[in-house]
Amino acid sequence: MTTADRIAALRDLMKQHGVAAYYVPSADPHQSEYLPECWKRRAWLSGFTGSAGELVVGRRQAGLWTDGRYFLQAEQQLAGSGIDLMRLGLADSISLTDWLAARLKPGEAVGVDPSVISVGVAANLEQKLAEHEVKVTYLPENLVDRIWPDRPEPSLAPIELHAATVAGETAKAKLMRVRMEMREHNCQAHVIGALDAVAWLLNIRSRDILFTPVAIAYVVLTDRGCSLYVDPRKVSKALGKTLGDMVKVRRYDEFDADLADLAERRPRVWLDPATTNRRVLDLLAYCPHHLAPSPITALRAVKNPVQIEGIAAAHVRDGVAMVKFLRWLEDAVPTGGVTELSAAAKLTACRAEAPEYQDDSFETISGYAANGAIIHYGPTPESNANLRPRGLYLIDSGGQYPDGTTDITRTLALGPPTKRQKECFTRVLMGMLDCSRIPFPAGTTGRRIEMSARRHLWEAGLEYNHGTGHGVGQYLGVHEGPHSLKDLDTPPLREGNLMSIEPGYYEPGQFGIRIENLAIVTVDDEHSTEDRTWLRFHTVTLCPIDVNLVEPAFMTKDQVKQLNAYHKRVYQELSPHLDAKHRTWLRKATSAI
Amino acid sequence: MTTADRIAALRDLMKQHGVAAYYVPSADPHQSEYLPECWKRRAWLSGFTGSAGELVVGRRQAGLWTDGRYFLQAEQQLAGSGIDLMRLGLADSISLTDWLAARLKPGEAVGVDPSVISVGVAANLEQKLAEHEVKVTYLPENLVDRIWPDRPEPSLAPIELHAATVAGETAKAKLMRVRMEMREHNCQAHVIGALDAVAWLLNIRSRDILFTPVAIAYVVLTDRGCSLYVDPRKVSKALGKTLGDMVKVRRYDEFDADLADLAERRPRVWLDPATTNRRVLDLLAYCPHHLAPSPITALRAVKNPVQIEGIAAAHVRDGVAMVKFLRWLEDAVPTGGVTELSAAAKLTACRAEAPEYQDDSFETISGYAANGAIIHYGPTPESNANLRPRGLYLIDSGGQYPDGTTDITRTLALGPPTKRQKECFTRVLMGMLDCSRIPFPAGTTGRRIEMSARRHLWEAGLEYNHGTGHGVGQYLGVHEGPHSLKDLDTPPLREGNLMSIEPGYYEPGQFGIRIENLAIVTVDDEHSTEDRTWLRFHTVTLCPIDVNLVEPAFMTKDQVKQLNAYHKRVYQELSPHLDAKHRTWLRKATSAI
Repeated sequence: MTTADRIAALRDLMKQHGVAAYYVPSADPHQSEYLPECWKRRAWLSGFTGSAGELVVGRRQAGLWTDGRYFLQAEQQLAGSGIDLMRLGLADSISLTDWLAARLKPGEAVGVDPSVISVGVAANLEQKLAEHEVKVTYLPENLVDRIWPDRPEPSLAPIELHAATVAGETAKAKLMRVRMEMREHNCQAHVIGALDAVAWLLNIRSRDILFTPVAIAYVVLTDRGCSLYVDPRKVSKALGKTLGDMVKVRRYDEFDADLADLAERRPRVWLDPATTNRRVLDLLAYCPHHLAPSPITALRAVKNPVQIEGIAAAHVRDGVAMVKFLRWLEDAVPTGGVTELSAAAKLTACRAEAPEYQDDSFETISGYAANGAIIHYGPTPESNANLRPRGLYLIDSGGQYPDGTTDITRTLALGPPTKRQKECFTRVLMGMLDCSRIPFPAGTTGRRIEMSARRHLWEAGLEYNHGTGHGVGQYLGVHEGPHSLKDLDTPPLREGNLMSIEPGYYEPGQFGIRIENLAIVTVDDEHSTEDRTWLRFHTVTLCPIDVNLVEPAFMTKDQVKQLNAYHKRVYQELSPHLDAKHRTWLRKATSAI
Repeated sequence: MTTADRIAALRDLMKQHGVAAYYVPSADPHQSEYLPECWKRRAWLSGFTGSAGELVVGRRQAGLWTDGRYFLQAEQQLAGSGIDLMRLGLADSISLTDWLAARLKPGEAVGVDPSVISVGVAANLEQKLAEHEVKVTYLPENLVDRIWPDRPEPSLAPIELHAATVAGETAKAKLMRVRMEMREHNCQAHVIGALDAVAWLLNIRSRDILFTPVAIAYVVLTDRGCSLYVDPRKVSKALGKTLGDMVKVRRYDEFDADLADLAERRPRVWLDPATTNRRVLDLLAYCPHHLAPSPITALRAVKNPVQIEGIAAAHVRDGVAMVKFLRWLEDAVPTGGVTELSAAAKLTACRAEAPEYQDDSFETISGYAANGAIIHYGPTPESNANLRPRGLYLIDSGGQYPDGTTDITRTLALGPPTKRQKECFTRVLMGMLDCSRIPFPAGTTGRRIEMSARRHLWEAGLEYNHGTGHGVGQYLGVHEGPHSLKDLDTPPLREGNLMSIEPGYYEPGQFGIRIENLAIVTVDDEHSTEDRTWLRFHTVTLCPIDVNLVEPAFMTKDQVKQLNAYHKRVYQELSPHLDAKHRTWLRKATSAI
């Protein structure tokens, strides 16, 4: 069955359902960042396998919208499919809604499965198309599923408990806190669609999705009860017992009927528009809604002392893996045969040496030379470059451990760096150091702090086109809200927030630089007074930074001191876990500049 | 008549009008920052003379809300009045609406004069109080006016033309540009309430308000006509001729009737919710509205080359006055008899030596020692401190010249400074220098850039509770939008924006430090490429910074170089306009550190 056959089959179904177009976003009923195989409908239908892409099939034309990271890949994978590649972010880009508006007549409709579109995105789509008198028709049955014969089954990986000794809080306590928030907003029910919210709330983990240890599930939390909707084959007897009276386990396919029952009581329902699908809103159409970010997002973002201890332990383990990898790389590159893909695999193997290792936390970005300048580059067999003893190499990776999720980027000089590379690297480093060091008054938002990571680049007319940092989960998503270090309207940083700090610089066609550590927001005892609480970052990532790329002449004395102190700490904390040869390597790599 | 008597008289009127509270904002029908005497109702009623403050009189209690700049002053002025000082911006601050909600019963009403409340503030107030079932009643007659026996008459100062040779653009051209914006938003009328918008649009100036050279007036601009509503006694025959057919001069009190006529044609009307009073909205109730910032705000904020030349000339003149003042102060303080008030008067006299001088641009903040820590301190005969040859002295002042408005703050050591004072001053200076120097990509908002002015203070756990900068007019308001250097959602900085850069630090009861220069946003030719335009500030304020307070050990080499280069420029640009003794003084004051 070619892509063209699939599209043709879909068009037949479109005709039957009376829609002039069909919209296939890259999303599942839980608005997950990484999709389980069974819901990779856009990839199956279009042949394009990138992580970001939206497909619209019209009566005669079809378009796939994706961003700069995927232009090349999409071009190749869409060749001959009859699907036009719609490049986002260019001056002459046409938006999906404009494309639809130009092709559909007033009164015609675009069909979409309401379970794969969030409440927020749906409202936006409806509004934009309404301006052109084009309708959105929600078709209960997913049309792609009808024509996808061998669609994979959802995973049956068992659900495991995330022990309270690691989570620092029982599910019972969490349920109580979320219910308090519900009462405060006069809500009697909260439907939770985001898989990482379900996992955090009930202290459960599974392996239904790559990289993020979650189970495919919904939770419906009311003032009196809590129901978990999952495939019951994933729930062992022991787990069922542990969840006990607190959580009723229901079949995943009972969710719709139960929501309909719930709706009859007309509770005021809290729905997070970003993570609740449109179908849920339909099922609760006659209930009053509180549309706001789930209270779980802000509660989860504040890590408790037990979590912080676990996160620190995970980072020692991760640092040991990084040291093993970096030492190996130093030896392996000159002898030849190392590629972007083999280096990434080696790093995963180094992590896997730790018995606690569960998975990588995202697809490793392993970019040599010009590939390093592609911000979200993931090597493919076609692009896979050989690492040679010259130029820069950027590796951005992370691990999942039961006590913590890691995310680290290092940029390495594989040979003698140029003056330009050293200046750029040092300016990125200075921003990283400043941002990691600076105290800030409680109430400060990430958008203000992140400037301190950019300013040394700005001084030289250099800039990077991505945010400076994101929240990170504990043995959960590597991207977690609500806080960020981005030029976005996110809430102030709070004590216990775990963040990435990752400035960069990219010279297209030449090299990419990024340095990323994770850090926890802590109270700055030195500066806090009765009148004002000061906060600052405590870095948890432990791994040397390549001093061959550092030009100390650019740096202030304080920055040099800070780098040396960091390296001293890296040595002190990692060396007890290393054998003699790695200790020797690390001592050299962390010696003062 | 004591404050208590006035409040009692108001409470009688409140009873007659059936309102449980009366709201007296610090505002006039034009939402002016500085109020004409006839509209200083809050000051007359409460006794508190600060520029920012809102009064609510309830049946038994009354509250005055003001911010940190005025806590001390308000405490003193409200003592014994029976009015509670409500401190804004503290952790336990109670908002005006919460205060009302706690004191009024459901169904009760708070009264307000709709002409002194903007459309935006009114909507907000109504909505917030509605949550508590408290109503807002708009009383056409201002209750304060009823009990204020000797309320001053509005000014009859003549209106003067602001020559196009200084403005760089004729009123005709401006009208065309504003009408283009109106057409773009499908508006057939624009009611302009802000006095500085009227002044900019028609190139007119007057003296109806202290410090800001504007006339009390409205403009109603339609696609076909333009009416200026003023007291006709302010319009000379010559001026009437110049305005000619382009602008119809109407009596100020014809405004209401004319709006009612306009409303009958049902045009779509552009109203700026921040500067249009609620009464206008009532008069146009049946017209479709376009509620958005007036197009004038953004147009006016971009200074043209003619204006930039004028602004530079005004700053040379202002710098000469500052040099004369500073040299005088150095001699006068040790001999005794100089007070905060006499020093401020001396500075005004120095400015007035220039034939172009028109007025100060705001009330001089002249604060010695502990008074300097009161952010918006204005000396009064009671608080007036003697300047002695020790401690710090802060003076924040500005002049109005036909070609430019100035705003400058300097902090001076009147005797040997302490180590602490030097550290604090140097950190403020480093922020000022960094913020003035750093290039930033086009599209950057002020909220991001201003961090560069704070970071050296933050490093030492120090902070200032005010924004870092505001827009400035040309022979107009010393505060002008829409851009700012504040932690607010203001639009990106654009080439031609004139800004203040004014970080500070205040040690309560001890001293205050602020250093303020004005600067124009210019294209950074060194860093701009085809792909990205870089901007940076070009400083226009020319006046030495007290190097006795500088501790170079804190500074980077670049910062020292920048300070020395600035001082060199100050000497070069001012010395041709100084006599020998002032030249000698300036050479010393600007010598390299």
